[in-house]
Amino acid sequence: MYDMAIELNTDGAKCLYEQIYEHIREEIKGGRLLSGERLPSTRALAEYLQVSRTTVDFAYGQLLSEGYIEAIPYKGYFVCRVEELPEGNMAVLMAENRLPEAEEEESNFCNRNICYDFSPNGLDMSLFPFGVWKKITKNILNDGNKELFALGEAQGDYDLRQTISRYLHSARGVKCTPEQIVVGAGNDYLLLLLEKMLGRHAGVAMENPTYKRAYRIFRSFAYHVEIVGMDENGMNVDELQKKQVKAAYVMPSHQYPTGVTMPIGRRMELLKWAAEEEERFLIEDDYDSEFRYKGKPIPSLQGSDGNGKVIYIGTFSKAIAPAIRVSYMVLPPLLMRRYRECCSFYASTVSRIDQRILNEFIRDGYFERYLNKTRKLYREKHDILLQELKPFRKKFQVSGENAGLHLVLTSRDKKHTEENLIGRAAECGVKVYGMSDALIEEDAQGFLAERKLILGYGGLKTEEIKDGMAKLKQAWL
Amino acid sequence: MYDMAIELNTDGAKCLYEQIYEHIREEIKGGRLLSGERLPSTRALAEYLQVSRTTVDFAYGQLLSEGYIEAIPYKGYFVCRVEELPEGNMAVLMAENRLPEAEEEESNFCNRNICYDFSPNGLDMSLFPFGVWKKITKNILNDGNKELFALGEAQGDYDLRQTISRYLHSARGVKCTPEQIVVGAGNDYLLLLLEKMLGRHAGVAMENPTYKRAYRIFRSFAYHVEIVGMDENGMNVDELQKKQVKAAYVMPSHQYPTGVTMPIGRRMELLKWAAEEEERFLIEDDYDSEFRYKGKPIPSLQGSDGNGKVIYIGTFSKAIAPAIRVSYMVLPPLLMRRYRECCSFYASTVSRIDQRILNEFIRDGYFERYLNKTRKLYREKHDILLQELKPFRKKFQVSGENAGLHLVLTSRDKKHTEENLIGRAAECGVKVYGMSDALIEEDAQGFLAERKLILGYGGLKTEEIKDGMAKLKQAWL
Repeated sequence: MYDMAIELNTDGAKCLYEQIYEHIREEIKGGRLLSGERLPSTRALAEYLQVSRTTVDFAYGQLLSEGYIEAIPYKGYFVCRVEELPEGNMAVLMAENRLPEAEEEESNFCNRNICYDFSPNGLDMSLFPFGVWKKITKNILNDGNKELFALGEAQGDYDLRQTISRYLHSARGVKCTPEQIVVGAGNDYLLLLLEKMLGRHAGVAMENPTYKRAYRIFRSFAYHVEIVGMDENGMNVDELQKKQVKAAYVMPSHQYPTGVTMPIGRRMELLKWAAEEEERFLIEDDYDSEFRYKGKPIPSLQGSDGNGKVIYIGTFSKAIAPAIRVSYMVLPPLLMRRYRECCSFYASTVSRIDQRILNEFIRDGYFERYLNKTRKLYREKHDILLQELKPFRKKFQVSGENAGLHLVLTSRDKKHTEENLIGRAAECGVKVYGMSDALIEEDAQGFLAERKLILGYGGLKTEEIKDGMAKLKQAWL
Repeated sequence: MYDMAIELNTDGAKCLYEQIYEHIREEIKGGRLLSGERLPSTRALAEYLQVSRTTVDFAYGQLLSEGYIEAIPYKGYFVCRVEELPEGNMAVLMAENRLPEAEEEESNFCNRNICYDFSPNGLDMSLFPFGVWKKITKNILNDGNKELFALGEAQGDYDLRQTISRYLHSARGVKCTPEQIVVGAGNDYLLLLLEKMLGRHAGVAMENPTYKRAYRIFRSFAYHVEIVGMDENGMNVDELQKKQVKAAYVMPSHQYPTGVTMPIGRRMELLKWAAEEEERFLIEDDYDSEFRYKGKPIPSLQGSDGNGKVIYIGTFSKAIAPAIRVSYMVLPPLLMRRYRECCSFYASTVSRIDQRILNEFIRDGYFERYLNKTRKLYREKHDILLQELKPFRKKFQVSGENAGLHLVLTSRDKKHTEENLIGRAAECGVKVYGMSDALIEEDAQGFLAERKLILGYGGLKTEEIKDGMAKLKQAWL
């Protein structure tokens, strides 16, 4: 019998069976107990170690469960063959895995001195009704809605889809039934589903510059991205005609970053292009349509579509809060069928509790009230920024200012470059963004010379906008 | 001048500018105002309609914004060319889109008469501390943590990842740092990310039968799925060697549906297979490892991996509640680097609020207490089921009963078929599941003859288990 001199510790820190189990396991792993070797019977070992037989039974049971030993009837317990594996150096692998020191993606200019950041992603949440959100959450949890802890429909709960379809109809002129809506945790996730519906090797046409996040996502797909030029009305349809693509990604309400609102004529041309083939679609990303400062909101492209060609994507992350990971996609009938075939087994990514909170927030009118307030707030910022831009107008052209949370400045002075303007602004403590950031072609040289800058104002207070613009005046005028 | 006889309604239901705007828009869309046609000046139209000039300005402004008309300096307003589009019949498209009447996927047997459903997906949430969850939620919202409404890290908030890594270390023997963890809204979403990391055209090996949901998801990828046979120890490594695959998907703790726990020997063989090539990985789906009824929990496969070969996936949907859409994936260093390159731009799918709630739920010990209680509860059900199964043992073999929330019955009587056994159970009001449901090869004929049934007990009360088993006795014995 193999020497089972196990030093048992009886201070209670570890129970006896565990110590026996661990000892034998280490003996096997260390090659000191060899495959095929017979272990003592439970009775013999129990006697030897002066422990109860149950204790040894337990230890052997665990070794059996994990496959270190096997029991052969009427013969006893034997050590199993365990493949030896050169122990890799996990520590080294882990060390390699550390993050590159403080990933500062956008640290071209030292952030230390930046006091005014005109980021196009800035949002103002000062008016968000935290109290209302809390109250709704509390009520929902209070109501003992235990069914909310169960898994909901893959597409999203029907109530929420109904509320969204009503909202989209009245606010955006979208024509849809709740059956056409798919709710998901963010636009990126919805695009992942869309990849499955459009199939592999599909091509997607994008404008240039465009929303780079979407570009990166399409590139990570089994897709080819085709770049289509744009003019002051948006995507060039003649160029689009020449591309082998299944879908064109557009932002008709307020193109990012140029701020172009696509006129009805161009919209109809796009719809006509899509209608020419069954497998052609328009992806309408309506990312910031809630904020428009001139006239009524421009209806969605989807609303003009009579042929089931538009995939409409919107999000509450911008209009409510980025943490609200709820986006929605309105699918045309053909893709809806495909969703059911090839995507409906993907479980919902939004918890039912969050869906219910959001549903009540919209249904009970809080969303509309909040939107009205933030719209007013952003309009105020927008107006102040335009006011402050007056002295710049000789040297800069302003565009894309009718909607959204950013506008575009183009320097009329050909001596300037984008880089140069950004650098001078940074020296004065102001961060502005070059439009070339949104370019999706490698060679941005020609574009850099176009001297286009993006100024986002959503995240700055009105005073900060004034002060920031005063600094920019020093820098540029 | 085109006749602008607009009948203005002054009852206040719709403001005047909107009526003018809509009238002209419809005239253009209806082809009664043609492209290139000149509109009256704002002054002329205002006089003609007896409204203020601002009203007409507003209406024209909206038409301009939407691109129905254009302004040519010193000349006036002209109708734009709008592409005509044959109006498709959206109503018909929408009608086609209705759901097929009440999608009853699993209605082979009329559900009306089913009183006892031994679904392997059933869970018991009766012990869930709703009060604690509510309290944590309330506190978090009370603390005015407004930063929680901002977008968090793509990988998941660091605090939560740290808590998960600690939990995985102590409960599952997983060796990882928080940097290796990616949090996402459900396993399906994590697999979508994994698709990007493993690259296109990768092959995945799966056992047969297996977890069909994962199979469907891999199939929806640009992947080929290779079926590898399994024996009583799990996936057959000799067969695996012959397949051109990048990854093997396994459930070593408790294979679904067979309930096999993979012994250490087979685990080492798999790890050795993976270590032979840089681009080989094991996907360990540890879906129900929290529930084990015999001995200590079996440590994870990841914990035995010294070479960075295991992708460990787990979820809180099973251990807490299906509505908690939080899963996690532990990536080996190589894939972690790839995640940063090609996936880190996918925004997090879990709201920061939910992440924080979960973090406190685990960190403050509620999770462990809840797990201990449910484990006890499930063990009770498990023991009762085994007790009730005693009279069946002559005719049926029981397996996979050491862990999880289901076990497997195999009929010893060759005259039986799976279908036949399920049918007879249904006649007595009991729903049991055939293992062939989990088969991923088309031809399940041979398997049907194997007469294997799945009995899940998580969702049934102890009394229901007893009553259901009594019915089954009538049906089968």
